[in-house]
Amino acid sequence: ETLDSFLKKKFKELHICEDDCPAPVTKTFTCTSVHASGRLASCPAGTVVTGCACGYGCGSWDIQNGNTCHCQCSVMDWATARCCQLA
Amino acid sequence: ETLDSFLKKKFKELHICEDDCPAPVTKTFTCTSVHASGRLASCPAGTVVTGCACGYGCGSWDIQNGNTCHCQCSVMDWATARCCQLA
Amino acid sequence: ETLDSFLKKKFKELHICEDDCPAPVTKTFTCTSVHASGRLASCPAGTVVTGCACGYGCGSWDIQNGNTCHCQCSVMDWATARCCQLA
Repeated sequence: ETLDSFLKKKFKELHICEDDCPAPVTKTFTCTSVHASGRLASCPAGTVVTGCACGYGCGSWDIQNGNTCHCQCSVMDWATARCCQLA
Repeated sequence: ETLDSFLKKKFKELHICEDDCPAPVTKTFTCTSVHASGRLASCPAGTVVTGCACGYGCGSWDIQNGNTCHCQCSVMDWATARCCQLA
Repeated sequence: ETLDSFLKKKFKELHICEDDCPAPVTKTFTCTSVHASGRLASCPAGTVVTGCACGYGCGSWDIQNGNTCHCQCSVMDWATARCCQLA
């Protein structure tokens, strides 16, 4: 056993990276749609609303409570939230 | 003090990870628009649909096959997909 | 040569990080809405438009200058840009 191979082995055995180095993360960007009847559609925890679609051809919406699409037109039958995340 | 604890301590003292480990990956988030005539507009491979716009003032759309904006109003002349990626 | 400098040199020579340490990614994806009167709403520097909402139920919009929602319907009272970033 050389000193080099000994140090390399030690490094692995001691899990030094697990203790001291940043955790491994290989994130990708993905989106899904959440469809609901009525005028509200909410994105699940851990996701973010990037846009909304509404029934009756309506393009007037706003985001409520940070994660909920609210379709504003007076008559409304459905709402869809586009929910994205890094995961 | 064992050799293990000594080596561990040394790794921490020497800030080896801070000096030698890969720098944080710096991905950026970008979006482009894909415009098409008709009621469908598709995002290219490697990008994700975050929202859609439609002709005739229409705000009713859904995502088909994961990457295609589908404008739902009965008469439709154009569709635009907003296509985003981490790169 | 001290023991410290020796260990540091060894660490580099052995390419331990390349073998065992992952690259860190520590960013999160967030979005906010920018609301404006008229037909234009712009995302601030460092953020990206992922979708737009418009007054009068209008779902026809496009992105101008890379960061501005432009609501196209003939009469328009407000525009909202959904602005997202990795930070």
